[in-house]
Amino acid sequence: MSGANVAVLASPAEALEAAQRLAPGLAARAARHDADGEFPSQDFAELRDAGLLGLFVPRRLGGPGASFSDYAAVALELGRAAGPTALVYNMHASVTGALASTPDALIQALGGSNRALQERDRLLAAARDGSLFAVAMSERGVGARLSKLKTTYTREGEGFVLRGEKSFVSGAGHVDAYLVAARAAARDEPVVSYFFVPAGDGVRVEPSWDSLGMRATASHDVTFDVGLPLDALLGGVEGLALLLAQVMPQWLVASYAAVYVGVATAALEEAARQATARGLGRLPALRARLGRADAQIAAARLCVLDAARAVDASPGTPATNRAVWRAKLLAGDVAATVASSMLEAIGASASRRGNALERLYRDARCGALQPATSDVCADYLGLAALGADPSAGADEARW
Amino acid sequence: MSGANVAVLASPAEALEAAQRLAPGLAARAARHDADGEFPSQDFAELRDAGLLGLFVPRRLGGPGASFSDYAAVALELGRAAGPTALVYNMHASVTGALASTPDALIQALGGSNRALQERDRLLAAARDGSLFAVAMSERGVGARLSKLKTTYTREGEGFVLRGEKSFVSGAGHVDAYLVAARAAARDEPVVSYFFVPAGDGVRVEPSWDSLGMRATASHDVTFDVGLPLDALLGGVEGLALLLAQVMPQWLVASYAAVYVGVATAALEEAARQATARGLGRLPALRARLGRADAQIAAARLCVLDAARAVDASPGTPATNRAVWRAKLLAGDVAATVASSMLEAIGASASRRGNALERLYRDARCGALQPATSDVCADYLGLAALGADPSAGADEARW
Amino acid sequence: MSGANVAVLASPAEALEAAQRLAPGLAARAARHDADGEFPSQDFAELRDAGLLGLFVPRRLGGPGASFSDYAAVALELGRAAGPTALVYNMHASVTGALASTPDALIQALGGSNRALQERDRLLAAARDGSLFAVAMSERGVGARLSKLKTTYTREGEGFVLRGEKSFVSGAGHVDAYLVAARAAARDEPVVSYFFVPAGDGVRVEPSWDSLGMRATASHDVTFDVGLPLDALLGGVEGLALLLAQVMPQWLVASYAAVYVGVATAALEEAARQATARGLGRLPALRARLGRADAQIAAARLCVLDAARAVDASPGTPATNRAVWRAKLLAGDVAATVASSMLEAIGASASRRGNALERLYRDARCGALQPATSDVCADYLGLAALGADPSAGADEARW
Amino acid sequence: MSGANVAVLASPAEALEAAQRLAPGLAARAARHDADGEFPSQDFAELRDAGLLGLFVPRRLGGPGASFSDYAAVALELGRAAGPTALVYNMHASVTGALASTPDALIQALGGSNRALQERDRLLAAARDGSLFAVAMSERGVGARLSKLKTTYTREGEGFVLRGEKSFVSGAGHVDAYLVAARAAARDEPVVSYFFVPAGDGVRVEPSWDSLGMRATASHDVTFDVGLPLDALLGGVEGLALLLAQVMPQWLVASYAAVYVGVATAALEEAARQATARGLGRLPALRARLGRADAQIAAARLCVLDAARAVDASPGTPATNRAVWRAKLLAGDVAATVASSMLEAIGASASRRGNALERLYRDARCGALQPATSDVCADYLGLAALGADPSAGADEARW
Repeated sequence: MSGANVAVLASPAEALEAAQRLAPGLAARAARHDADGEFPSQDFAELRDAGLLGLFVPRRLGGPGASFSDYAAVALELGRAAGPTALVYNMHASVTGALASTPDALIQALGGSNRALQERDRLLAAARDGSLFAVAMSERGVGARLSKLKTTYTREGEGFVLRGEKSFVSGAGHVDAYLVAARAAARDEPVVSYFFVPAGDGVRVEPSWDSLGMRATASHDVTFDVGLPLDALLGGVEGLALLLAQVMPQWLVASYAAVYVGVATAALEEAARQATARGLGRLPALRARLGRADAQIAAARLCVLDAARAVDASPGTPATNRAVWRAKLLAGDVAATVASSMLEAIGASASRRGNALERLYRDARCGALQPATSDVCADYLGLAALGADPSAGADEARW
Repeated sequence: MSGANVAVLASPAEALEAAQRLAPGLAARAARHDADGEFPSQDFAELRDAGLLGLFVPRRLGGPGASFSDYAAVALELGRAAGPTALVYNMHASVTGALASTPDALIQALGGSNRALQERDRLLAAARDGSLFAVAMSERGVGARLSKLKTTYTREGEGFVLRGEKSFVSGAGHVDAYLVAARAAARDEPVVSYFFVPAGDGVRVEPSWDSLGMRATASHDVTFDVGLPLDALLGGVEGLALLLAQVMPQWLVASYAAVYVGVATAALEEAARQATARGLGRLPALRARLGRADAQIAAARLCVLDAARAVDASPGTPATNRAVWRAKLLAGDVAATVASSMLEAIGASASRRGNALERLYRDARCGALQPATSDVCADYLGLAALGADPSAGADEARW
Repeated sequence: MSGANVAVLASPAEALEAAQRLAPGLAARAARHDADGEFPSQDFAELRDAGLLGLFVPRRLGGPGASFSDYAAVALELGRAAGPTALVYNMHASVTGALASTPDALIQALGGSNRALQERDRLLAAARDGSLFAVAMSERGVGARLSKLKTTYTREGEGFVLRGEKSFVSGAGHVDAYLVAARAAARDEPVVSYFFVPAGDGVRVEPSWDSLGMRATASHDVTFDVGLPLDALLGGVEGLALLLAQVMPQWLVASYAAVYVGVATAALEEAARQATARGLGRLPALRARLGRADAQIAAARLCVLDAARAVDASPGTPATNRAVWRAKLLAGDVAATVASSMLEAIGASASRRGNALERLYRDARCGALQPATSDVCADYLGLAALGADPSAGADEARW
Repeated sequence: MSGANVAVLASPAEALEAAQRLAPGLAARAARHDADGEFPSQDFAELRDAGLLGLFVPRRLGGPGASFSDYAAVALELGRAAGPTALVYNMHASVTGALASTPDALIQALGGSNRALQERDRLLAAARDGSLFAVAMSERGVGARLSKLKTTYTREGEGFVLRGEKSFVSGAGHVDAYLVAARAAARDEPVVSYFFVPAGDGVRVEPSWDSLGMRATASHDVTFDVGLPLDALLGGVEGLALLLAQVMPQWLVASYAAVYVGVATAALEEAARQATARGLGRLPALRARLGRADAQIAAARLCVLDAARAVDASPGTPATNRAVWRAKLLAGDVAATVASSMLEAIGASASRRGNALERLYRDARCGALQPATSDVCADYLGLAALGADPSAGADEARW
C-alpha cells in the first residue's frame, strides 16, 4: 500500500484532532455498517489518509511517536463514534504499539538480531505509509489461551511453514498483514511465537463473522497454510508470545478498554438526546439512571487513562499491570451496565432497530466477553490484592 | 376461521400437556423466526389445532375454563420454548381471558345489555374454534397511556367510526380481529373504550416491526380507518378501558411476566448445556453465575405464580394488584439480568448469531421495557408500601 | 423445667396466632436487648408459656405436630418482631424438628434401637413441657464444616466422654440442653455424631458473644468436658451428622432463612413508617427504593415458603434440597440489600442508635454470613444447574 | 490555643509525609474510639503538633498552602487509618480551605471590607497555630438544606445575636470555634449567612451522638444562644452560604469523599490480611470479591483525585462541579458496597466486634447517607447529563 495520500502527523495532539475531525463521519456510517455487518472501508480509508495508522510510529521514522495515553485518547474518541471501527483500529494499534514499544535491548537480550530490528522498522514504516495490520490469536475451543493453541509452525528450508485456523480475526480480508500466534510443532512444552503473514496466498478468510454486536469488525475465521521467510518471525526470537503477555498485558488485556468506554459514552449521550427530544427529562427515574451512568463512565474513563499513564511511565511492573486489568474489568462492565440502563431509561422505542441505542446496547455487551473476561480480570485482581503473583497464581492458565 | 381441525381441550391440565408437547417444535423453529423477523405461522397453526387458543373459554362454551394460574403455567412453558410466540399468544390470552373473567354482573351494572353478553360469548366461541386476536393499544409518542390516546371513535349512524394509528400491535397481519382502544372524539375528559375490529378493509398493517429482540412477534404499526357496528363496542359500554386497567391490571401489566421467566429459564438451561459440552463446569465463576441465576429465576417464577393465584382468588384487590406489579417488575429485571450473566458465563462464543444465547439475550432484554416498565412498577410498589393508593398517587398518569 | 404453666397448642394455626400475639411484646423489647447484648429471657418465657417450644412435637405426644411450612410461618412472624429471638428459637426448632421428622424406620435401618426411639420421644416431650435446646456445632477456625471438627468423643465405660470448644452457640447459658456435634476420637475418617448434653457440670459458657448484629442471641463460645450416658448419642447411632446434613439440609442451611425475610420485612415497614412520619413519601427515589425492596422481599418470602412446602412434601430429594439452598441464598442477600437501601431511603437520621433501622441494618447483614454463606449457596446451585451432584461436586468439603 | 508545639509544614509533601507517619497510631487507636464513642483527642493532639491543622494556610501566612488535591491525598491517608478522625479533620479542612480559597476579589465584590479580609487571615493564622474548627450547619428535620434552616440571627447593638439548635456537629465540644449557618430572622426570603462562634458561653453541647458508624466524631447536637461581634460574620457579608454552596460545592458535597475511599481501602486491605492469615486465598469466590473491590476502589479514588484537580484548576465551573458530585456519589456507594462484600468474603467471624472489618463496615455505610446523599447526587448528575442546570433544576431545593 502506497503512502502517497497519507498525511504526516506531526504530534499526538494532531492525531487526536484528526480523530475528532473524522468522528462525525464514522458515527454517521455506523448504523449502516452494523445493519449489513459490513467492514467500514470508508472509515479506514479516512483513518489511513489522516495518518492515524501511523500513530505509534516513532519520530525517528517520521511518525508522531504516540504514547499509550495518546492512543487511549484517540481510541475513546473513535469508540464514541463507531465501536467496531475503533476495535479494528485497536488491533492495528496493538501490533504497531507493541512493535514500537519493545525496547531494542530486550530484543537483543533475547537473541534477536539487528536484522530483526530492521524488519520491525520496516513494518512500522509500512504502517506510517498506510498499511493496516490484524491480529490472529484466538482459536475455536481455545479462546485466547496461548498455551493451548493448535496452530503450529515448523522450520522448513530457509523459512517456516505455518498452519492452523484462527477465529475472531478482526479486520480479516481487509488488512495488509496478520500477526499470527503459533506454537512450535516440534516441542512438547508450549513455545508460542508471533509471525507476520502478508495477506494473499495461503491465507483464506471464511466470512463467518455474524454477531450480536460489533458487527462491522469482520472478525472472521481465517485459515493459514503458508510458507514464510525467516524474517517473518517477530523479533527474530521464538517464544515471544507468552513473554509479551506478561510484560505488555495492555495489548492483550486493555487496549480496547478505551473503545468500550467510548461506546458507553455514546449510549449516555444518545439517551440524553432522546430524552430531551421526547420531553422525558422530568422523570426522576430517568434522571437517576443518567446520573449514575455518568458517574460510572467517568470512573471507567479515569481508570483507562490511569492505566495508560502507568504503561507509559513504568511498563510491565506489577502496579502497572494491575491498573491495566482494572481498566479492562471496569470498561467491560460499565459499558454493558450503562447501555442496558439507557435502554430502560428510554423504554420500548429504544429497542427498535434504527434507534442508535439498540445498536449501542449490542456493541456494549461485547466488552466483558472479550478476553480477559470480567471474571478472569476479577480473579487476577483478587490474587494481586492478596499479595500473590497474579500471573502465576491462577487455577487455570490465563494465556 | 373454521374450527374443523381444532382439538377440544377437556381441562387445563390437557392444555399444559399440549403446550409441553408442542414446545420442542416451537424451540426448533425459534432461531429461524428470529433471524428473519418472521411471524411463527406454523407455531400458531399448531397452537390452534391443539385447542390452545381456547384456553380461557369457559366450560359452558365447551372450553377448558382455564384460570390465570393455568394460563401462567402454559405461558411459562411457551416462553421457555419460543419467547415471541409466547408473547403473541399472551396478547390473545389477554383478550380472551379478560372476556371470560369479566363478571356478567359487572357488565350489567355498567349498563351493558344482554346483547353485549351474547357478543362476548360469540367471541369466546370463535377463539374456541381457532380465531386469533390481537391488542392494539399503544401509540407512538403516547406509549400505553390510555388517557393520552389519539385514536378516536365517533358515533355515526347505526355504529361507530374508528380512526387512528397504533404501534406495537403484536401479531398484526396474522390475526382474525383486533381489540382496539380508542377515545371518544366528542368528549373533553378521556373516555376510552375498547372495540373489536375484524381484520380486513379499513385495517392497514405497516410492516414496521424490526427490533432488538422478540423479533418474530410482528408487532407492526397498524392504521385503522373503519366503520363498525354497535356490537363492536366491548361490553356495550363506553369507558371500559381505564376501569379494566384498574381492576384487571394483570392483563396490561403482568400477563407476559410468565413469558419472560420462561425466556430466562431457557437462557439458564442453554448456558448449562453449553458449559457442559465445553467442559466449563469446573470454573467457579461460571458456577456462581449459574447458581445465582437459578435462584433469581425460581424467585421470579414463584412471584408470577403467586400473582396468578391471587388473581384467581381475589381479582382486583389492592393485595392482588401489588402481586401483579411485583411479578412484572421481577420477571423483567430477572430476565435481563440472567441472560446477560449467562452470556458472560459462556464468553465470546455466546455472542455469535446462531448461538441460542445470543437470541435469548436480545429477547430477554425486552421485558422490562414493555409497559409497565420496571421503573414504573417500582414507583407503584413504593407508593403501595407507603400505604398510599398506587393507582392514584403517581406523579404521572400510569394509563 | 416443669410444664406447669405451658399452654397446649392444639394446632399449627394456634401456634401462628400465639406468635402473632406475642410479636408486639418481642418488638418492643428488641432495642434494649440489642443495646445490651442481653439474652431475651422474657421473650422466651412468653414463647415457652405459649407452648411454642413444642411446635414440632407430634400429636401423639400432645403437640400440634407442625410441618416445616407451619414453622416457616411462625419464624417469619418472630423474625419480623425480633430477629435474635427468632434465631435462637430457630436453633431449638432445628433440634426438635429434626427429632420429630426423622422416620423411625431410618433410625432403625441405621441400627438405632427402640431405646433410641424412646429417648427421642423423651426429648420431644421435654420440649412440649418447656425445655429449650441449643445447637453446638461450629468451631473457631473450622466454621460449620462437620468433617473438620476438633471436638471429639470417646467411648469410656458405660458411656462417652466428650471434649471440645464450640463457637456461635446461640442461647448458650440459657438453655436446658445442647445438641453437640463431635467426631469419634479413635477414627481416621470423619465419623461425626450428635450428642445431647444437659446444661450443668462440664459445660462452661464463655461470655464471648459481642457482634455486629443479632446481638441478643448469646451465641457464646462453650467448652465441653463432660461424661455422658449411652443414651446421649442421638438416634443411638454414630455418624449421623453428615448423613443428616445431606438428607435434611433444611435444618443446617435454611431454617433461619425465614428469620431474615422477617427482618427485611421489618426494615421495609419501619422505613415506610419513618418516611410517612417525615413526609418523605413525595421523593421518587425513596419510592423506588421501597418498591424494589417490596418486590425483593416478596420473592424471598415465596422462596422460603416454597422450600418449606417441598421439605414437607418430599424431604431430602435433590429438587427439595435445591429449593432449600435457594431460600438461604435469597433470604440472606435480600435482607442485607433491603436493609442497606432502607437506610439510604431515610438518610443520616436512620444511622442513629435508637433508630430501629440502625439495628435492623446490623441484624440483616448477618444472614448471608451464616453458613452456608451466599457464595457457598451459589456454588451449590450452580453445580445443580449443571446437572452435577452438588453434595459431592464442590472443590471444598461443604460440611 | 497556643502554637508553641506546633510544627511548621514547609510544603504539602511534608504534610502528606506527616499524615503517613501518624497513620499507624491513628489506626491503632481506632477500635477503642469506636467502642467507646470517644473523641480521638490523642489523634488531634498529634495532628495539631504535626502542623496538619494548618494544611490550607497559605504560604504568605506561614503555611504550606495546600491545594484541594494535596488535601485529598492527606484525607485518603487519614481515612484509611481512622475514618472518624479523618471526618472531623475534613470539617476543619472545609472551613480553612474555604477561607483560604475564597478570592479577595470575590469578598470585596460582594461588599466585604478589608476588615473582613483581616479577620479571615486571623482565623487562618489561628489554624496554623493549632486551632481546630467545626461546622454547625445541619438541623433536625431540615438536614443540610440551608434554605430551610431554623437557626436565626438578628442584628442587635454592635453585633449579632444567633440562636438555634444544630445537629451532626462533628467535633462538638472539642473544637475552638464553630462555623455556624443561620438565616436572617427579619427576612422573608432565605438569607443564610455564616458566623464564627468561639467555644464557650452560649454554646451548649448535648452529648447526643451515638451512631451506627463513625462513632468517634462527637457529632453532637449543639445549641447556640450567643451574642457575637460584627466581625463574626464570615466575609463581612450576609447571604454568603447559598452562594458558597453553588460555587464551592466541594466543601459541602465532596471533601469527605476521600475519607470514605480511605475507609474502603482499609476494608479491602484488612480482608486480604485476614484471608491470608486464615488460608482463604484459595477460594475463588473470595478472590472475585477482592478483585472487584480493588477495581471499584481504584475507580472511586481516581474520581476523587480528578475532582480535586478540577477544583484546583477551575473552581466553580459546571464541569468541576459535576466532578465533585461524581466523587461524592462514587465514594459513598463504593465504600458501602466494598465493606459489605468484604464481610461476606471473610464470613461470620468478621461480624464479631473487635474484628476490624466489623467496625469498617459500619463506618463505610455512613458515606452515602451524608448529604448530598447518593440519590441526590444521581439526580444532580442526571440533570447535568441532560444539559440542564443541575443547581436550579431539581424538584426539591438541594440546599
